[in-house]
Amino acid sequence: MIVEMRPSATKEEIEDVVRKATSLGFSSHLNMGSNKVVIAILGEITEQVPEESFTHLPGVITVAQICTPYKLSSREFKSEDSLVSVDGIEIGGKRVVVMAGPCAVENEEQIMAAAKAVKQAGACILRGGAFKTRTSPFSFSGLGEAGLRLLAEARERFGIPVITEVTDPRDVDLVLRYADILQVGARNMQNFALLTEIGRSKHPVLLKRNFASTVTEWLLAADYLMKGGNNRVILCERGVRNFEDHSRFSLDICSIPVIKRFSHLPIIVDPSHAAGHYLLVPAVAKAAVAAGADGLLIEVHPNPCKALVDGPQSLTPSMLTLLMEDLKSVAEAVGRYI
Amino acid sequence: MIVEMRPSATKEEIEDVVRKATSLGFSSHLNMGSNKVVIAILGEITEQVPEESFTHLPGVITVAQICTPYKLSSREFKSEDSLVSVDGIEIGGKRVVVMAGPCAVENEEQIMAAAKAVKQAGACILRGGAFKTRTSPFSFSGLGEAGLRLLAEARERFGIPVITEVTDPRDVDLVLRYADILQVGARNMQNFALLTEIGRSKHPVLLKRNFASTVTEWLLAADYLMKGGNNRVILCERGVRNFEDHSRFSLDICSIPVIKRFSHLPIIVDPSHAAGHYLLVPAVAKAAVAAGADGLLIEVHPNPCKALVDGPQSLTPSMLTLLMEDLKSVAEAVGRYI
Amino acid sequence: MIVEMRPSATKEEIEDVVRKATSLGFSSHLNMGSNKVVIAILGEITEQVPEESFTHLPGVITVAQICTPYKLSSREFKSEDSLVSVDGIEIGGKRVVVMAGPCAVENEEQIMAAAKAVKQAGACILRGGAFKTRTSPFSFSGLGEAGLRLLAEARERFGIPVITEVTDPRDVDLVLRYADILQVGARNMQNFALLTEIGRSKHPVLLKRNFASTVTEWLLAADYLMKGGNNRVILCERGVRNFEDHSRFSLDICSIPVIKRFSHLPIIVDPSHAAGHYLLVPAVAKAAVAAGADGLLIEVHPNPCKALVDGPQSLTPSMLTLLMEDLKSVAEAVGRYI
Amino acid sequence: MIVEMRPSATKEEIEDVVRKATSLGFSSHLNMGSNKVVIAILGEITEQVPEESFTHLPGVITVAQICTPYKLSSREFKSEDSLVSVDGIEIGGKRVVVMAGPCAVENEEQIMAAAKAVKQAGACILRGGAFKTRTSPFSFSGLGEAGLRLLAEARERFGIPVITEVTDPRDVDLVLRYADILQVGARNMQNFALLTEIGRSKHPVLLKRNFASTVTEWLLAADYLMKGGNNRVILCERGVRNFEDHSRFSLDICSIPVIKRFSHLPIIVDPSHAAGHYLLVPAVAKAAVAAGADGLLIEVHPNPCKALVDGPQSLTPSMLTLLMEDLKSVAEAVGRYI
Repeated sequence: MIVEMRPSATKEEIEDVVRKATSLGFSSHLNMGSNKVVIAILGEITEQVPEESFTHLPGVITVAQICTPYKLSSREFKSEDSLVSVDGIEIGGKRVVVMAGPCAVENEEQIMAAAKAVKQAGACILRGGAFKTRTSPFSFSGLGEAGLRLLAEARERFGIPVITEVTDPRDVDLVLRYADILQVGARNMQNFALLTEIGRSKHPVLLKRNFASTVTEWLLAADYLMKGGNNRVILCERGVRNFEDHSRFSLDICSIPVIKRFSHLPIIVDPSHAAGHYLLVPAVAKAAVAAGADGLLIEVHPNPCKALVDGPQSLTPSMLTLLMEDLKSVAEAVGRYI
Repeated sequence: MIVEMRPSATKEEIEDVVRKATSLGFSSHLNMGSNKVVIAILGEITEQVPEESFTHLPGVITVAQICTPYKLSSREFKSEDSLVSVDGIEIGGKRVVVMAGPCAVENEEQIMAAAKAVKQAGACILRGGAFKTRTSPFSFSGLGEAGLRLLAEARERFGIPVITEVTDPRDVDLVLRYADILQVGARNMQNFALLTEIGRSKHPVLLKRNFASTVTEWLLAADYLMKGGNNRVILCERGVRNFEDHSRFSLDICSIPVIKRFSHLPIIVDPSHAAGHYLLVPAVAKAAVAAGADGLLIEVHPNPCKALVDGPQSLTPSMLTLLMEDLKSVAEAVGRYI
Repeated sequence: MIVEMRPSATKEEIEDVVRKATSLGFSSHLNMGSNKVVIAILGEITEQVPEESFTHLPGVITVAQICTPYKLSSREFKSEDSLVSVDGIEIGGKRVVVMAGPCAVENEEQIMAAAKAVKQAGACILRGGAFKTRTSPFSFSGLGEAGLRLLAEARERFGIPVITEVTDPRDVDLVLRYADILQVGARNMQNFALLTEIGRSKHPVLLKRNFASTVTEWLLAADYLMKGGNNRVILCERGVRNFEDHSRFSLDICSIPVIKRFSHLPIIVDPSHAAGHYLLVPAVAKAAVAAGADGLLIEVHPNPCKALVDGPQSLTPSMLTLLMEDLKSVAEAVGRYI
Repeated sequence: MIVEMRPSATKEEIEDVVRKATSLGFSSHLNMGSNKVVIAILGEITEQVPEESFTHLPGVITVAQICTPYKLSSREFKSEDSLVSVDGIEIGGKRVVVMAGPCAVENEEQIMAAAKAVKQAGACILRGGAFKTRTSPFSFSGLGEAGLRLLAEARERFGIPVITEVTDPRDVDLVLRYADILQVGARNMQNFALLTEIGRSKHPVLLKRNFASTVTEWLLAADYLMKGGNNRVILCERGVRNFEDHSRFSLDICSIPVIKRFSHLPIIVDPSHAAGHYLLVPAVAKAAVAAGADGLLIEVHPNPCKALVDGPQSLTPSMLTLLMEDLKSVAEAVGRYI
């Protein structure tokens, strides 16, 4: 249920609404817009409460149900686009934000070479995994904290913020000491213990869509993050599973306009995991920008043939440089810039 | 198996190769390139025949197996892009060809209004169905030959070639008297009787991908058309089926670079059937052009609310006009034009 | 819309209802039950006609809408199970009917050996393809009419009815001269020209589910057959496509109770195409019978290693014999027999 | 890599092999069979080590690569079926083990009524969730430890072991104090932090297949559990996601014989989550037993209409009683008992 307050509503009037919600057993969540406040009243059975319970409170303009299952991430709760600011870079605005780097941090030489290349090519955020979710327990699973330290060093040296994955609720505090953006991988999209823990922080978080989840389930996972008070959520489409084997996953290009319609959160696209092969990455990246994505997350490796993880889908630095030129043209064609 | 001939090979030498193939129980198919001839030797067990059977024939440079299951539609058989020319419009070249119109021809007023709008917006081919494949036998299934006549009339009046679907092998001769391009719908992609019949004509044909077919199966269906001698094949991606319900199908954006890599045939995209909702169509259309599609097939209706078929996914004429402007910018951004 | 007549309704009263339907632009279809007649009124917009148009006609008990998109195949139209009788064998009754044989008729020796084995193992219908739908145009596509003649000969020699596929509407008349049951393959489930042609005959027909079609689309395809007046429809589940590659398709075991709930038509299962490997076939066959399938369609070949088509998924005759014993036990466990 | 030791191999010889593996940077895992020992040598690049490194060690019979990506859960590593014993009940043997109960523990009255019904119907393990993974953060998520205490009380009162889900690695110690079997839900199948934590315990664990995971990924998740030394792993198939909406998921019936072929672990089936509707549950349950499942996990609620979670797919106690009778017959038909 959404309670929209008059622009002139007092702090007291807002608190009255929250108190009323609490007395009915619900929690509430405030969206402090530039000229009005909207309060989401949240609980499993809010639809059983008559809207009149709130309509007549002072300062209230309208009361309405949120029709979608997801609430805090919905456009109904917040009509204007959300911007997530990371070290001065705004995600969700006019700029198309390119994040790039290797799948995994392997060693100092590799991550520094990658950071340099990424920066030179014009990307503005460095990606690199220290804790990897690997399908097999016998595969390389990342350098752990040593990898985080290397990322932090790259950030210092090249003046570029970093994004890295966190996979265990017990690691959240550790990872957010090093990372500018926490990444939740596709396999963990419904790891609710992890989401809840990240929700407690106010740290920017990138939430990848699980490869078999609907858009509705994805936005409900975002609600888990936002319920804890973390509004700095960036969505990331990375492809869904199907029967075709020329590409690793099938990028759901429609999800971009769908998210734009039903949610206020920014959405970026990972063309590398979707495509699964570097030759396909440029086409998918350009398509994503043309469709309205707010950014890209691209795998780049100084030497893909020697990559410990995901080599086949990684671009070389010179491929990235070429792609960035093309992406700039496409961004301009749709009224944005990189 | 592919036999590549010397540029200087004589007609006699080429015929010798064909005769040899015939004597081994195989058929052969010639690709007369600008400066050389390549001969595909086709049959179920060509890999069991030693390459030496052909290597030593006069005029032969190289003999190789085609590694993909599809042969005539493969890049291995024909390395340069194929262009399909329709009434002077080249599909597969620099120009991105936009085909637009209503799902079904309903009556004279509707198809003429549509044709006028399509032409004015800058699209260059008119679509409209006279024989419709409908999931229910109780739904409107098109006007049949009366619809074809209206299409032909629109072509005359507005000077715009037309594309229309054929669904029954017994109707091929009828439809090609009216249509500039025959369309094979997704449900008929593996209707091999229909494909074989169309293959006998030399008429341009648009082959939609079935919503549960792999790229390999799609190119094998193209081989059915080409085996009969019809090389004027245009592929059309229109989305595959999955679990997501915000869009009707999931457009396989990766299929565009995949087709460009493995086949010489042009590929266009139908954003309307993939998206299933007009609000999603522009984003998907722009993405397709950015990813390298050679054209688009867009549903437009003078009055979508009253459309007998597929109203929710149809653009109005004014939406099409706006979209065309955006598409021109995107096409230019990737080095093409509309 | 369904109009249920009193048990005592006269022929004249029934004709009045049909006439009324015709006058409103609808067609009608009669279900002559043992003690009452139900009339389906069919057309795209029957829900816009007030039920009162029929309620007050003499002989009418009730008028109701059919809620499902499919009509003639629905339980709402016909509440009792339909039995399809083939040469004295009833499909849809207590007996679980096993149809078995090779994917393709290859030559006289092979089909006679198969027929003998099938008969000896206790299966009661022989399968064998003369017109094959092959993904590649360069694969063996069946013996055509020569294959049909061999099937007919096997029927004579071993006293066993035969089922065989028809793939082209122009072949329907030919195939039904030889076959006891016409088979529509998965790829042709929505080949509406073919369905319409078969609907005109009154010949038993087995309609395979397409590997990417919903149950609703499948029953609508059955409606195409029944609309023409052919009520002798047998459904066949053969697996849907997904991402798993240990089996060729994923048999939708739930479709059996779903069909039993929403349709009156018999349903059998093809475990061979679903599994794609002979080792998996027995488990799937037993599961199908336990779940309530009315029969099975199993691939058996005298020498699977030399089969021209689908060898890996074919049982040998001795495997079939063993499986039949197990199937008998399972059938009894669920109150049926083989 | 697998090193098979002579039956007469000494402890010392076994230790030599393990030491050699360690010196090469690999870990090793012992399968102590009744008359021989097999040692798995595990690491990312074992295939790069010559088999000769081990062949000539004393006591070694053969050295071989494990061809599948999963190792410890593979039949190649352990050829005989694994039995998981829970409170005297063996899972994976002749008996088909039925686990039943409500989706969530709601209160004392409900869980006691459920436990009584489950016991009376002849099921031998009680299920009930205290920590629920819910798609929405605003849904009831279980009673937590209070729910565990109620489960433990039901176990005492009715003498029936209990299975319950654990969703957070930090809760593993807590949950295993109450539960006889830990359950890993489908959404957590690749929550590797959770798997690793459970792997450290030696507690029986039921690993549900994720609804978009392949059999290979599922067995690799089992390897995560086994790598830590926990061999008491039970697999549970509960359906994969597809486009059909009559059932909630599509039960992959083929996965049963596939698992039996490639793995030594027991496999049970959850028909309730797959079907999503109680009317479909009996058919799916019977199919699973006929196909060779070692057990079932069925949702039963004393009053499904009032269930807080998953009411539509829950059986009533009397439905369970009827189903158990049918399941006994089917189990006998395939040479097993309940």
